[in-house]
Amino acid sequence: MHELEIKVPASQPGSYKVAIGTGLLPSLWPQIKAAFGHRRPFVITDANVAAAGHLDALLGSRPAPQFVIDPPGEGSKNIATAVAIVEAMEKAYLGRDTLVVALGGGTVGDMAGFAAAIFKRGVPVVQIPTTTLAQGDSAIGGKTGVDSSVSKNAFGAFWHPAAVYIDVAAVQTLDERQYRSGLVESVKHAMIADADYFEFIEQQMDALLARRTDVLETLARFNCTIKGRVVEADPDEQNQRRMLNYGHTIGHAVESASNYQLLHGEAIAIGIIAAGYIEIEMGLSEPGRLERVTALLERLGVPTKMPADLDNRQLIDLLKHDKKAVDRWPRFILLDRLGHIHCPHGQYATDVDRTIVEQVLNSITGNR
Amino acid sequence: MHELEIKVPASQPGSYKVAIGTGLLPSLWPQIKAAFGHRRPFVITDANVAAAGHLDALLGSRPAPQFVIDPPGEGSKNIATAVAIVEAMEKAYLGRDTLVVALGGGTVGDMAGFAAAIFKRGVPVVQIPTTTLAQGDSAIGGKTGVDSSVSKNAFGAFWHPAAVYIDVAAVQTLDERQYRSGLVESVKHAMIADADYFEFIEQQMDALLARRTDVLETLARFNCTIKGRVVEADPDEQNQRRMLNYGHTIGHAVESASNYQLLHGEAIAIGIIAAGYIEIEMGLSEPGRLERVTALLERLGVPTKMPADLDNRQLIDLLKHDKKAVDRWPRFILLDRLGHIHCPHGQYATDVDRTIVEQVLNSITGNR
Repeated sequence: MHELEIKVPASQPGSYKVAIGTGLLPSLWPQIKAAFGHRRPFVITDANVAAAGHLDALLGSRPAPQFVIDPPGEGSKNIATAVAIVEAMEKAYLGRDTLVVALGGGTVGDMAGFAAAIFKRGVPVVQIPTTTLAQGDSAIGGKTGVDSSVSKNAFGAFWHPAAVYIDVAAVQTLDERQYRSGLVESVKHAMIADADYFEFIEQQMDALLARRTDVLETLARFNCTIKGRVVEADPDEQNQRRMLNYGHTIGHAVESASNYQLLHGEAIAIGIIAAGYIEIEMGLSEPGRLERVTALLERLGVPTKMPADLDNRQLIDLLKHDKKAVDRWPRFILLDRLGHIHCPHGQYATDVDRTIVEQVLNSITGNR
Repeated sequence: MHELEIKVPASQPGSYKVAIGTGLLPSLWPQIKAAFGHRRPFVITDANVAAAGHLDALLGSRPAPQFVIDPPGEGSKNIATAVAIVEAMEKAYLGRDTLVVALGGGTVGDMAGFAAAIFKRGVPVVQIPTTTLAQGDSAIGGKTGVDSSVSKNAFGAFWHPAAVYIDVAAVQTLDERQYRSGLVESVKHAMIADADYFEFIEQQMDALLARRTDVLETLARFNCTIKGRVVEADPDEQNQRRMLNYGHTIGHAVESASNYQLLHGEAIAIGIIAAGYIEIEMGLSEPGRLERVTALLERLGVPTKMPADLDNRQLIDLLKHDKKAVDRWPRFILLDRLGHIHCPHGQYATDVDRTIVEQVLNSITGNR
C-alpha cells in the first residue's frame, strides 16, 4: 500500500468593512459599484422590504437582476427558496463574477448568504440589513442557515460577507412587533459580553422604543463590536463562538414548536429566560439577575413565558435534533454573571442533565 | 457614519492522507473507526456500487446508517438528491459529529461531498472511490458540484476530504464502457502535467485495459501526485487549478447537450480533441501532437468526434452558461506542448474568439 499526503494550505486572512449610519441607502449603490466594480450584482430581497420602499431607495431607476422572496419571512427560509434563487441567477446568465447583494432582514440575509455560498462553488455577498434583528446580529458573522422539512438550519455554510452596510433609518418601516422582537439579540449580546451595554439598553429603552437613530447607531456599534470580536476569535465556531447561541438552544426549539407563530426574537427571549432558570438550577445565578433580565424583556414587550399550547415532549424531541447535539442531546450556553459566559475547563458549552431541562420547561410554561 | 473592520482570520492549514492499494476494502472500516472514532459515520453510496458488493465488503455485517442513491448515475447528481440525503441524515438524528463516508464513483463523491459541506454548516467526508473516474480524479481535490434544472454543477462547494482510500481492486466490477471512459481524466492529467506519464499510458495501454492492478496502482500514484500538487498550490481555483479543466469547457457542454447519453469521460475526450483543434488555430500545436492524442483516445475506445445529432447552437448557449464564464463567454485551458499548459501573462486560462470555437465545433462534428 502506498500513502500520499495532500496539503490543504491555510486560506488568506481577510477582513470586511461594517459601515453604520442613518440614511445611507440612497447613496449606497454607487459605493458598492465602486468597491466591487468588476462584479455583476444580483439583488436578493423580499416582498416586505420592496413594499417598504427600500429596494427603490437602493436602486433608484437603475436596472439590476433580482429575486424578491415572496411570501417574506421564516416560512420561505427553506431549501426550495435557495434552489429557486440559484436557478434565477443561472437564468440571468450570471457566472462566478456575481456579487450577491442581500437587502432585508434575517431571512433574506441567510438565504442570500447561503445561495452565494453554494452558487458555482461560491461568490461574494454584501449584506444590507434592514431590520433590528439583522442589523443587531445576523448580517455579520458569516453564518447562514436554511431549513429543511425536518428541522431548522439543517442546511448552511459559513460564508463571511464581503461588506456590511447598516442604515439604521431602514428600521423605521418595521411593524412594532418585528422591531421589538429584533432587539432581543442586542439584549443577548449585552448579557454575554458587556454588563455596561446591558445598562445602556436599560437606560435608553424609551429612546430605543421611539426608534431614535442616534441610540440605534450606538446600539449597532455595540453589537458589531461584540459580535465581531467573538467571530474574529473563532470564525468557524470551534468553541468561543458558541456563546452567541445563548438562549438559542431552547429558543430554536420553541420557535419551531410554535410553527413560527413566534418570531425569532420572541422565541429567543423565552430561551433566555429558560437559560436563566437553568443557571439557577446549576448554581450559576446572581441575586436578582433573572428578575432584571425578565424586567428588561417585559419592557421590550416580548414573551417571557412558554406559550401554554406548546408540547414539552415535542420540545425535548426538537432538542435532540439540535445541530450542536452530540449523542442526541445538546449542551447549553450559560452565564455565571451578567456579561460573562460560564466556561468550565475552557469550554463555552455546558452539560446540563435532561431532567433539569424538563423541569425548567415545565416551570416556565404559562397556565395549562 | 461609523466604520468598523471585522477580521476573518486565516483557516488552519491541514492535510489529508491518500492510501492506494489492492483489496483494501474489507479491512477499511476498522481503519476509519480508528482514525475518526469520535464521529458517527453515515455511508453514501449508489445502487450499482451496492449491487457490485462493495458496500458489503466495506461494512460486513456492521450496521451503519446509509443512503443508497437510486437510480445511480449522473441523472441523480442533482439538488433534489442532495436535499434527500441531508434529510436522511437528520432523520437518523445525526449531528455535527457526523462523518460522511462516500463509497462509489464520481456522482456519489460529488453528492456526498456537497451534502457534507452543507449539512449543519459542514461535517467531514471520507472518500472511497470505486471507479476509474473517481480514483483518477474526482475523489481528491475537494471540488463538489451538483446540477440544477438549468445547468451542470450550478450548485457546489470546495470541501476537502478528511481522507481518501483508493482500492484499485474495486474497478474490476465496472462495465467496460464506464471503465474506459473513466481513464480519460488520467490521460488529461498526463497531458497537462507530465509527458512521461503520457508515454507510460501509451506503453501500458494493454495492461491497463486488462485491469492489471499493479499498473492501476501506478496510475493512481501519478494521478494523485499531479492533482495533489495542483490543488496544494491553488485549492480554491484562483488560477493554476484551472489547468485541471483542460478539455472540460467544451466537454461539459457536450455532456449536457447529449442529455448525459455520453459518459463524463467520453464527453471530456471530445473536449480534449476540440482543445487540440483550438490549439492549432491559436498557433499552439506541435507537429503530430493531436494525432498522438487522438490515437491514444481511440485505443481507449472513447469518442473523438462530436456526435452528429448535437446542435452546435445549443453547445454555444451552454458555453455561455459555463460557471467560469465572464461576460457570457468562458476562457479555455490550452496546451503549448504535451505536459505543459499555455500560460500567457501567468494566466492559466486563455481568451479564444467565439468564431474560432464555432469553426472547431463544426470541424470535429461527425457526418451531418
